[in-house]
Amino acid sequence: METPNLFRLFFLSLCVGLVLLFTWVHLPYGPDLLDCTTNSAWCTSKNRFQSKQPNNHLKNDHNPTRHRNHVSDTPHHPLDPLTVEEINKIRTILSSHALFSTSAGYALHSIELEEPDKPLVLKWKKGDQLFPRKASVIARAGGESHVLTVDLTTSEVTVHHTGSHSGYPTMTIEDMTSAMWAPLMDARFNRTILERGVDLTDLACLPISTGWYGKTEENRRLIKVQCYSMKDTVNFYMRPIEGLTVLLDLDTKQVVEISDKGANIPIPKAANTDYRYSAQGTNQVIKLLKPISLEQPNGPSFTIEDDHLVKWANWEFHLKADARAGVIISRAKVRDPDTGELRDVMYKGFTSELFVPYMDPTDAWYFKTYMDAGEYGFGLQAMPLEPLNDCPRNAHYMDGVFAAADGTPYVRSNMVCVFESYAGDIGWRHTECPITGMEVREVRPKVTLVVRMAASVANYDYIVDWEFQTDGLIRIKVGLSGILMVKGTPYENVNQVFGQDSLYGTLLSENVIGVIHDHYITFRLDMDVDGSDNSFVKVNLQRQQNSPSESPRKSFLTATRTVAKTEKDAQVKLKLYDPSEFHVINPSKKTRVGNPVGYKVVPGGTAASLLDLDDPPQKRGAFTNNQIWVTQYNRSEQWAGGLFVYQSQGEDTLAVWSNRDREIENKDIVVWYTLGFHHIPCQEDFPIMPTVSSSFDLKPVNFFESNPILRTPPNVETDLPVCMAAATT
Amino acid sequence: METPNLFRLFFLSLCVGLVLLFTWVHLPYGPDLLDCTTNSAWCTSKNRFQSKQPNNHLKNDHNPTRHRNHVSDTPHHPLDPLTVEEINKIRTILSSHALFSTSAGYALHSIELEEPDKPLVLKWKKGDQLFPRKASVIARAGGESHVLTVDLTTSEVTVHHTGSHSGYPTMTIEDMTSAMWAPLMDARFNRTILERGVDLTDLACLPISTGWYGKTEENRRLIKVQCYSMKDTVNFYMRPIEGLTVLLDLDTKQVVEISDKGANIPIPKAANTDYRYSAQGTNQVIKLLKPISLEQPNGPSFTIEDDHLVKWANWEFHLKADARAGVIISRAKVRDPDTGELRDVMYKGFTSELFVPYMDPTDAWYFKTYMDAGEYGFGLQAMPLEPLNDCPRNAHYMDGVFAAADGTPYVRSNMVCVFESYAGDIGWRHTECPITGMEVREVRPKVTLVVRMAASVANYDYIVDWEFQTDGLIRIKVGLSGILMVKGTPYENVNQVFGQDSLYGTLLSENVIGVIHDHYITFRLDMDVDGSDNSFVKVNLQRQQNSPSESPRKSFLTATRTVAKTEKDAQVKLKLYDPSEFHVINPSKKTRVGNPVGYKVVPGGTAASLLDLDDPPQKRGAFTNNQIWVTQYNRSEQWAGGLFVYQSQGEDTLAVWSNRDREIENKDIVVWYTLGFHHIPCQEDFPIMPTVSSSFDLKPVNFFESNPILRTPPNVETDLPVCMAAATT
Repeated sequence: METPNLFRLFFLSLCVGLVLLFTWVHLPYGPDLLDCTTNSAWCTSKNRFQSKQPNNHLKNDHNPTRHRNHVSDTPHHPLDPLTVEEINKIRTILSSHALFSTSAGYALHSIELEEPDKPLVLKWKKGDQLFPRKASVIARAGGESHVLTVDLTTSEVTVHHTGSHSGYPTMTIEDMTSAMWAPLMDARFNRTILERGVDLTDLACLPISTGWYGKTEENRRLIKVQCYSMKDTVNFYMRPIEGLTVLLDLDTKQVVEISDKGANIPIPKAANTDYRYSAQGTNQVIKLLKPISLEQPNGPSFTIEDDHLVKWANWEFHLKADARAGVIISRAKVRDPDTGELRDVMYKGFTSELFVPYMDPTDAWYFKTYMDAGEYGFGLQAMPLEPLNDCPRNAHYMDGVFAAADGTPYVRSNMVCVFESYAGDIGWRHTECPITGMEVREVRPKVTLVVRMAASVANYDYIVDWEFQTDGLIRIKVGLSGILMVKGTPYENVNQVFGQDSLYGTLLSENVIGVIHDHYITFRLDMDVDGSDNSFVKVNLQRQQNSPSESPRKSFLTATRTVAKTEKDAQVKLKLYDPSEFHVINPSKKTRVGNPVGYKVVPGGTAASLLDLDDPPQKRGAFTNNQIWVTQYNRSEQWAGGLFVYQSQGEDTLAVWSNRDREIENKDIVVWYTLGFHHIPCQEDFPIMPTVSSSFDLKPVNFFESNPILRTPPNVETDLPVCMAAATT
Repeated sequence: METPNLFRLFFLSLCVGLVLLFTWVHLPYGPDLLDCTTNSAWCTSKNRFQSKQPNNHLKNDHNPTRHRNHVSDTPHHPLDPLTVEEINKIRTILSSHALFSTSAGYALHSIELEEPDKPLVLKWKKGDQLFPRKASVIARAGGESHVLTVDLTTSEVTVHHTGSHSGYPTMTIEDMTSAMWAPLMDARFNRTILERGVDLTDLACLPISTGWYGKTEENRRLIKVQCYSMKDTVNFYMRPIEGLTVLLDLDTKQVVEISDKGANIPIPKAANTDYRYSAQGTNQVIKLLKPISLEQPNGPSFTIEDDHLVKWANWEFHLKADARAGVIISRAKVRDPDTGELRDVMYKGFTSELFVPYMDPTDAWYFKTYMDAGEYGFGLQAMPLEPLNDCPRNAHYMDGVFAAADGTPYVRSNMVCVFESYAGDIGWRHTECPITGMEVREVRPKVTLVVRMAASVANYDYIVDWEFQTDGLIRIKVGLSGILMVKGTPYENVNQVFGQDSLYGTLLSENVIGVIHDHYITFRLDMDVDGSDNSFVKVNLQRQQNSPSESPRKSFLTATRTVAKTEKDAQVKLKLYDPSEFHVINPSKKTRVGNPVGYKVVPGGTAASLLDLDDPPQKRGAFTNNQIWVTQYNRSEQWAGGLFVYQSQGEDTLAVWSNRDREIENKDIVVWYTLGFHHIPCQEDFPIMPTVSSSFDLKPVNFFESNPILRTPPNVETDLPVCMAAATT
C-alpha cells in the first residue's frame, strides 16, 4: 500500500514547511501572490492534488474560469471584492504604518472591502464612477487586535476603537496550521503519543477553538489540539487518540497544559474508514446507475457581468466570495412581469455565524462548541468545488481572492458555483378533472438557479445553496455531509454498555462513538422589499369558536396581523400549535387591491437550541435563542456572534443588539433566521455521511399582483436536445 | 374569441350526454370497455384534448405505454391490480347476483383487488403460482351500501356485514357529473342564475361533499352544488356565483334546498384569469429560459418487470394505481451493500386520506371540509400526466385500470410516472481543508427515483411524489398547485374592508377572496423493517444540567429511548422544544455493534389542525389530531377516515382505532404520518398557484452497518452525453 508512505513524506515536508512558514509569516511582507506549488496551506488543495495525482474525473472542459490568477482584475461595482492589486497595495500601505513597522510581528486576520454606505450603493448605477475604494482590515500586533480602514485612493489608514468587548479575530490559516504541529515541540506530548502506540509520522492533529468558560480563557489567545492516527487511512477522524487534549497559547505556540484521560481507550481500527474511490477495491465498487446529466443544448440562461453581477430569468444580484461568510448575495432584485421593472428584494444576505455544540460534558469534549464563521472563517474553509459532482456540467465557477496573514493575496479557485437546476419538478399545473370534464391540462416545469459553496471545516462539510426561483422565491438550503467528529471508547458492542446515556451518542463501529450535537446556521438577511423602509408583521392563525346559532361549525381559524413595533416584538420562537406567517412588508406600497407588498420568511430546519441560557456556549451562541429576529439596520451588526467571536463572552451578539429594543416599524430592517439541526449520529454516518439538508424560504406574499410565472411557456419536444453517449462519438 | 362558443357547444353536448348517461348508468351492464370518444366523463381528458385540439407540446415519443387498452393484461404478482378481463368477469358475476338482478338500479362504487393475506404475499416468490384472485367490491343497491368479495376462480360472491357505521362509499364519477347538472332541472335555480346575470350556457357547477353536521346529513346521501360562470375563461373557479348553494339528494338527484345569500355579490371579472398558454397573447408570453433537460444517453437505470415491479439501483418495489389512494407502493426492499441481500423496509405505503377544512363559518362555506380520497377518490381524480412538463423526458408512464359505476372497466392512461431525477445535488462529499492540507476531495452526485401522480380534485392539484434514494431514504412529498377555491365579495380594495377578519382570507383581485384553509394528507405506512414484527421507539432529546464540579458546561442534551408499548404511547404531537426522533426498529435484529436495525420517520410539513376536537369536521378528520400514530396491523384499517367517509360521523377513524390502545411492541405495526399545510392565500396564488411542497422522510437509522453508498463512483466526463439542440439536427 502506498498510502502510508505518501503521508509520511507529506508529514515530513509539512514539518519543513512549518519552519519556512514561521519565518515567512513574520516577514513584513512576502511575495506579491502566493504560489501554490511552494506554499500550500492556504492554496487550493486541488492544484496540488492534480500535480501529484492525475485523476481523470477532475478534468472539466466546461469551466473557462479555472486557474485565473486575477492579477489584472479591476472592480466594476461598488460591492466588488478587493482585487489582487488592491490587496497588494493595502499590504504595502500597512507595512509602513506605525502600528506594524514598529511591531516585532503582526498578522492580518482579515482584509475585506469596506462596502460604501448603503444609500450610496442604492443610488449607484452601472456607468457611474465607483466610490473611493476602502478596505476594512482586522490585524493583531503587539498582542492587541486592531480594526483599521485603509483608503486605497489616499493611502490613509484610520485606526478604530474596538471597544471593550472580549474575544479575538477569526484565526488565520497560519494560526491553525502552526497550532497543529506545535505540540510536537513538547517532549511530554511526544512521549504520550508513543505510549499510545502511534508513530509520530502517523500523527494528524486538529486545532479546536476553546470557547470561553471562565478565567482560563480570558486575556490570552488559546487553542486546544487533539490528535488522530492517519495510519492506513486518510480518514484519520475515525481514529482519535481519545482523551488527549493539548492547550496551546495561540500567540506564542507554547504548550500551556496537557490533559490525558484516555490512556485506556484504544485507537479504533482503520478498516473500512477510507472513503476515497481510489481506495475501494475494484471488486467492491458498486455502480448502481447509468449516466444522467442536466443538459442545456443552447447553453445556460444566465450571464455574469463583470465577474459578479448574475442575471438569470427574472433575477439579478451581485455575488461574491467572502473569507468569513463564504458567499455574499447583494442587491437581489426581481423583475415585475407587469411593469418590466426590477424591484428590490434583498440588499444583502449571507451566512452570519454557525454554532455547533457537542453534547458531551467530559474533559476532552465539553468545549467543542464551534462557531465556524467567526472562529475558522467559513469562506476560508470553502475549498474548490469538484466539477460534475459538486455542481452539474454547465456550472460557472467563481474564485475567491483572499489574503494570507502577511497580506499576500491568493486565489481560492472554483470556490463558488452557479448553475441552473431542473429536477423534473413542476412550477405550476392544473388539469380539469372528470368532474368538470373540460379539456384543460396546463403544466409548467420548474427550473431554478443555484449558487453553491461547500465549506469543509475540518471534518464537517457544509453545502450552502442560494436557490432562486422564477416565481420570486429564494430558498436558502444547508446540506451537512463530510465526517463526524467521533469519540474513542473501549466498547465494541452496545451490549457492553450499562446505561446508554453514558455514551453521549451512538456506537457507530467498534470503539467509535458518534457524539450527539446540534448545528445552527444563522443567516443575516437585509431585506429591502421595494425599498429600504419595511415592517415586520406576524400573521397569527388562531382558533375562533362559533356558537350553534352562528354556524354548524364549532371552530375556524382567523389570521391576525400584528406589526412589530420594536425589536423585542420580533423575537420569534416557532410554535407548531400557535402558528404564524412572518411577513416583511413595505407599508408604503400596496398592490392594486390594497395589500401591502411583502416577502415572507417560511421556516424550515426548525430545531431550536435547548441548552441552558446561562451555559457559557449558549451565552456566546445567544443568536440561536430565537429562530427569527428582526433588528434595525446597523452597519456594524453583521456577525451574529459578534465581530470578535473567538473566546468571546457573548457581549456582542445579536441577542444583545436585539434587547436594545430599537424601533423597527417602517424602518430599514434586517431579518435573521437560524436553520437548526439536531444530530444523533447513526451507523449510516460512518465513515462519511450521506448529505442531510434543510432549508427555509423567502417567498413573495402579495409582492406581485398575480402569479408572476403565469405567462411562461411549457416545455416542448423540439426545444430539447438530441444526445448521444460520449463513448460512441 | 372562440372560447365561449366552444364552451357552449361543450355544455350542450354534455347536457345531451347527461341524458344518455342516466339511462346507461342504470343499465345492468354496458359495453366491455368504455370508449373515450363517446363517453367522456371518466376517460382521460387527454384523448379528447388531442382529438379536438392538436397541440404540439403534447407529443411525446418517449412513452411506449400510451394508449394501451390493457385488454390482454394478465396478473403476474399477487398484488397486481385487477385487469380489464377480470373486471369484466366481476361485472358479469355481479349482474346475475341476487342483490343486483332484483334491484331497480345499482352502482358499483369501488372494484379493487382484494389483496391476499399478508403472510401469503410475504412468502410468495416469482415463479410461484398466484393465489386465487379476488375482488373487493363496494356497491349501492336498494338504498344500501354493500361490501362484497368476488372470487374470480369460483365466481362466488360473499356479502360482508358492513357494521353500523355512518357514512357512504366514495362517490362514483357518475354521482359527481350528474350532481353538477341536476340543479338545472329546478326552475327556481335557473331563475336565480339568470337574475345573477349568468347565461345558463355559461354555467359550470361543482359537486361539493356536504360533510356531517347533524340530523340534516343523516340517513340520506346528500351533496351541495355551487356554480360559477365560465364566460370568457376556462378558469371558472375565479368567477363564483357567490352564496348560492343547492342541496341535492345524491340518490334521487332531487333538489332538497336552495340557499341564496349572495344576491348582492358581483361575479368577479374574467380578465386575467385564463392560465392556458394558448390564451396568452403572443406579446404577453414571457420566455425566461433556454431549454434544459435531464438526459440519459444510455437510457434510464430502472426496469419495470411485468408492468408493476420497479427495480432501480438498490431498490425494488411493487407499484400500482388505485382509484382511492392514487398510488400504492408495496413490498419496498433495499439491497444491503455488504450482503447483497434484498431487505424488507415497507410492506405497503399510500395516501390514506386527505382533510381540507376551509376557515369560513358562513352559510356557503362552513361545510367545505373535503376528504378527497374517501369522498372523491384520489386516484379517480388523477388525470393523465403531461409528458415533458409533469415528468421529465425519460419518464415511464403507468396506466390505471378502473371501473365505472356499472362495472365497465376503463383505462386512465399515463396516470403515474416513474423517472430518475438529478438536480445537481450532492450525495456525500468531503474535502480536506487548509487546516489539514491533505489532498482529498471526494464527492458523489445524488440521483433519485421518483414515482409521481397528480390528482386534480376539481380546483386543487395535488402532486404526490415517492422519491427513493440510493442511501436508503424514502422521501414522500406533496406539492400543492392548481386553483384556489375563492369567494366572491363586493370589495374591490382592502381599504373598503372594516376589520380584515371578516374576509376570512385575502383579497386577491377585485371581488375575489382567497379563503384561509388547511391541507392534511395522511399516509399509511405499513413498515416491515427486516420483517413484520417491529417496535416504535421515541428517542427524546432532553437537557441535562451539570454542576460546576462536574464540567465547565452547565448543560448538554442526552437521547433517551422509550419503546411504545401500546397505541396510545405512540400518539405523537410534535414539539420543537421537546424534540424526538421516531424510530421503527426490529428488536430482534441488531447490527454488528449491537444497535437495533431501524428506519426513522423524519417529520416535515408539520402544520397541525387547530380546530376544536368536538367540531364535526375535526371529529371526522380526527386522524389529524396527531402528526404520528402507530397502530397494530389490522387488515381492515386502511383508510384513516374510515371505509365510508362520505357523510361519516367519525366513528371509524384512525383516532378511534388507536384509542383501543392495542399492544404494538414487537408486533406487526403500521405508522401513520400526516403532512400538514396552513394556507393563507396571497395574490401570487391568483389565478393559478405556483407549487408549494412539503415532505417527510423514512430514513435508515442503524439499518445498514455503514454508509450504503460509500463505494459508488463519482461522475466522470466520459460518461456524460454529447448533445445538440434538436433544431439543428
